[in-house]
Amino acid sequence: MNRNFAIIGGDLRMVKLAKLFACEGSNVYTYGLEEAEELKNIENITFCNQLNEAIENVEIVIGPTPFCSNGKDINAVYSKQNITCEQLIEESSNKTIIAGSIATKIYELVNDKDKIIDIMKREELAILNTIATAEGTIEIAISNTDKVIHGSEILILGFGRVAKILASKMKALEANITCSARKEKDFAWIKAYGYKSTNINELGRNLSNYDIIINTVPYQILKQNNLQYVKNDCLLIDLASSPGGIDRDFAKIKGLKLIWALALPGKVAPVTTAKIMKNTIYNILKEEKDKC
Amino acid sequence: MNRNFAIIGGDLRMVKLAKLFACEGSNVYTYGLEEAEELKNIENITFCNQLNEAIENVEIVIGPTPFCSNGKDINAVYSKQNITCEQLIEESSNKTIIAGSIATKIYELVNDKDKIIDIMKREELAILNTIATAEGTIEIAISNTDKVIHGSEILILGFGRVAKILASKMKALEANITCSARKEKDFAWIKAYGYKSTNINELGRNLSNYDIIINTVPYQILKQNNLQYVKNDCLLIDLASSPGGIDRDFAKIKGLKLIWALALPGKVAPVTTAKIMKNTIYNILKEEKDKC
Amino acid sequence: MNRNFAIIGGDLRMVKLAKLFACEGSNVYTYGLEEAEELKNIENITFCNQLNEAIENVEIVIGPTPFCSNGKDINAVYSKQNITCEQLIEESSNKTIIAGSIATKIYELVNDKDKIIDIMKREELAILNTIATAEGTIEIAISNTDKVIHGSEILILGFGRVAKILASKMKALEANITCSARKEKDFAWIKAYGYKSTNINELGRNLSNYDIIINTVPYQILKQNNLQYVKNDCLLIDLASSPGGIDRDFAKIKGLKLIWALALPGKVAPVTTAKIMKNTIYNILKEEKDKC
Amino acid sequence: MNRNFAIIGGDLRMVKLAKLFACEGSNVYTYGLEEAEELKNIENITFCNQLNEAIENVEIVIGPTPFCSNGKDINAVYSKQNITCEQLIEESSNKTIIAGSIATKIYELVNDKDKIIDIMKREELAILNTIATAEGTIEIAISNTDKVIHGSEILILGFGRVAKILASKMKALEANITCSARKEKDFAWIKAYGYKSTNINELGRNLSNYDIIINTVPYQILKQNNLQYVKNDCLLIDLASSPGGIDRDFAKIKGLKLIWALALPGKVAPVTTAKIMKNTIYNILKEEKDKC
Repeated sequence: MNRNFAIIGGDLRMVKLAKLFACEGSNVYTYGLEEAEELKNIENITFCNQLNEAIENVEIVIGPTPFCSNGKDINAVYSKQNITCEQLIEESSNKTIIAGSIATKIYELVNDKDKIIDIMKREELAILNTIATAEGTIEIAISNTDKVIHGSEILILGFGRVAKILASKMKALEANITCSARKEKDFAWIKAYGYKSTNINELGRNLSNYDIIINTVPYQILKQNNLQYVKNDCLLIDLASSPGGIDRDFAKIKGLKLIWALALPGKVAPVTTAKIMKNTIYNILKEEKDKC
Repeated sequence: MNRNFAIIGGDLRMVKLAKLFACEGSNVYTYGLEEAEELKNIENITFCNQLNEAIENVEIVIGPTPFCSNGKDINAVYSKQNITCEQLIEESSNKTIIAGSIATKIYELVNDKDKIIDIMKREELAILNTIATAEGTIEIAISNTDKVIHGSEILILGFGRVAKILASKMKALEANITCSARKEKDFAWIKAYGYKSTNINELGRNLSNYDIIINTVPYQILKQNNLQYVKNDCLLIDLASSPGGIDRDFAKIKGLKLIWALALPGKVAPVTTAKIMKNTIYNILKEEKDKC
Repeated sequence: MNRNFAIIGGDLRMVKLAKLFACEGSNVYTYGLEEAEELKNIENITFCNQLNEAIENVEIVIGPTPFCSNGKDINAVYSKQNITCEQLIEESSNKTIIAGSIATKIYELVNDKDKIIDIMKREELAILNTIATAEGTIEIAISNTDKVIHGSEILILGFGRVAKILASKMKALEANITCSARKEKDFAWIKAYGYKSTNINELGRNLSNYDIIINTVPYQILKQNNLQYVKNDCLLIDLASSPGGIDRDFAKIKGLKLIWALALPGKVAPVTTAKIMKNTIYNILKEEKDKC
Repeated sequence: MNRNFAIIGGDLRMVKLAKLFACEGSNVYTYGLEEAEELKNIENITFCNQLNEAIENVEIVIGPTPFCSNGKDINAVYSKQNITCEQLIEESSNKTIIAGSIATKIYELVNDKDKIIDIMKREELAILNTIATAEGTIEIAISNTDKVIHGSEILILGFGRVAKILASKMKALEANITCSARKEKDFAWIKAYGYKSTNINELGRNLSNYDIIINTVPYQILKQNNLQYVKNDCLLIDLASSPGGIDRDFAKIKGLKLIWALALPGKVAPVTTAKIMKNTIYNILKEEKDKC
């Protein structure tokens, strides 16, 4: 596919995304990536001196994921410039903005809500990202324990997308997997996939069985009342975004090893993650076209 | 759990279910099972001479799955009696009837819709039944081909519950699995579980790649226009209930081996299936109680 | 590869082998296969009226597997002719005979021992045949139990080639596998592949744990003294060639279900088995050539 | 089991081993481990001030793995003392020394060869260590690539113990595995376990297919003549002990990422490795006793 894209700010994933588009023959206009050395001297990539210069030639403006962390500027790891969200949105009027994890406040700034798309809300991207999240978690588990994963008892809290793929891969490495759930339907799936199960409402003394406990639930589920039962040498991995699902203070008091691992796909597999983004952007564009 | 159940009619699954209840200490009153030799002389099982005799001592009446096949009588493989649906429903007034695959027409006969429950609509039962369906399909695939499954190319049509577990088990036997889907979300799951994928809307010449094609879609998806491309020695297995998803007439004309495999759980694993029914009945009773 | 082969007698595997050779462009001269309808009217296949006619044009004579069952004639399922072993050997002087499971007595009849090769002694064939043996065993296990394999407790006696691949496939179907062994080395492999283990010298009361017991050891290992502990509904599968490894008489007295499954590859997957034979014959011929 | 052991020098594995013995109630006398803080104040562990003090109470002297790296002193990571090999051997006369990777030169110093045992030559230990080696390799692969392992093309050179378990675990993570071999027997196993295969004698242009290449062969197998074909972003992992199997100089010139990963079990899983050592020592002692 041969298109024009503006890529503004972002992290290593945006760098890899720019390269992927350029390799396929698309024209990429960048701003806020001037320190990304690996993009220099690549055919089809233009470094622009002004934001409007990057945007004026394109219909699609791709912004960072997450879009903004300080409430004011867009994230731009490879730039010394400050690019405000307002500025980007203003310059992009009549264009489509695709970015990730866009806060409601920012989202509200865009007049035509059809013209701003949060790529992180796309289900195919979320599902495919679970692969890298699972591999990153495996890496963490291997490097932070002094026993092998093979034969260890692992509890996974939650049974959503990440938990499903993580359970499948950890079991494939011969760990004994227990998944937690609440609904009969989920207990049935857990059994059908060959895991053990435990009721998430009944965590307590049974937590002493596990060598590794991995949380995917986005609210505090392991607190003093049940965390007290965890083995001293149990590794805790929290994959839930802020505020996380494990009481950090109590874990510290008890001397437990706790790793809070966020945004693994971009860290563990930036190229794969960029490819998934690219394909998701193509899916979005195709659906937009089909609507017309 | 110690309860009273009436079990009326049915097939081998009902026989096994009666045994399971009796083993756990419940009292089982049966009618329409008088030829089930393995139930004779079992403590806690009472053979009744009249339908009303079986029902009068209980709150829960368990009927066959499927409930009725001829539009008039309930199914009763182990009986010479004709027990009409109307009769069973009438005798059970004020009791709860639990049975499976109850036709709308029958369902309408019951005044209080809270008092008739179709166990086949319970999701946990449907999910757990996929295990036996998958194993039965594996048995069919092994015994109806003259090549090994290992290394063979298998296409699974549909990506619902049965397809997911079947794909997982067939892949575990080292078959190369292609799953078909329509939605980006499903393509993402297919990739995350490590299968190949094909778009179900684009079946045609590509069908010539497969050694075994298994259909789980409940409408005709393989017709002359695409079935013509299937290899001569390809095995077709149709798991979809009537009318099935493969054009039987054309398959015959083309000389293809087609096996229409229905109701596998009860055939392949009646004891496991009865256990799943038992647990589902307990779940139903627990939920009824929680409602009060 | 374009060669000349004589194929004399044998079962369905020989029929499939003849077809495979012919498809690849080799000339196949057959005798003792006159009732194999699927070989008729195939290019490159010649039905000969006399044994010597089939042999005179070739360097390589392929005989049946097993070669001879009655001590006198070669096995020839698709023929009304009696072809004696002596006759075949005499007509093949100065040619290479390749056949399977050749009794020592027969083997001794051939003057030049380099000119008679028992294909069943080839390790690559034995290993590849384990795949079909494992699949056939899975088919037997599914169709002869009334529970699912998923979650069942399976004991495999012996830890040779068949046991290794069978354990791997049964585990992939979510069965809980226990392998038996004697040597520390084997216990280490069993653990490394993620199975449970038991000492084959200590079979007794622990046999009551298993839903299915599969024997691969070629001498009687399950006798009254330990068989008495097996559960009444345990399925016994004996894969060991005569005299087998399970006391058939005692199993009968105790009312146990015992299936003695021999020569599964030829039954379950004759085409795959013929392909393996074909490749093994090519390996043999290549090695013969490399010797010169 | 309740015994007396001297544990002299060594690394973290020896520390964990001392703890394991002490936990089981054995008496452990240590020397050359005075800086191992985690051993302090543990019941049953005695820190000795002199080598002979540690040895005089025991029959079994356990030394480091590898035994000696500088040709003179035993390895002792947790000690400021220099303990010469000669000194240890002399003090241990009439005792059994168990240590690992003992050089021939050292081995020759011991008069009674029955009294010095190289634990690294025990097959059960070598097999069980492959689990940690495989997990460590997985960790390296995940953290040193910017793509996911899932779906990547991995070539494993060699088909010994490590390669077998590594292939099994990498495939379980959905990588596409190619194993290399020379013998028909190995090709058969490779196929039976569901991997692709390539002939190790024909490595060349085909190397460009792989995202990750892992060597387990203990001599130089990847040299300029074939390494030139490897993709620029291919990750090379060399698990072979010195001199390794990959031409380091040429890899550097070509700018390839090469990780030479040695002694992974002790690094990745010191507790598991110590447990394996402990069980192997028990096996050794049992066999010694059975000999008498």
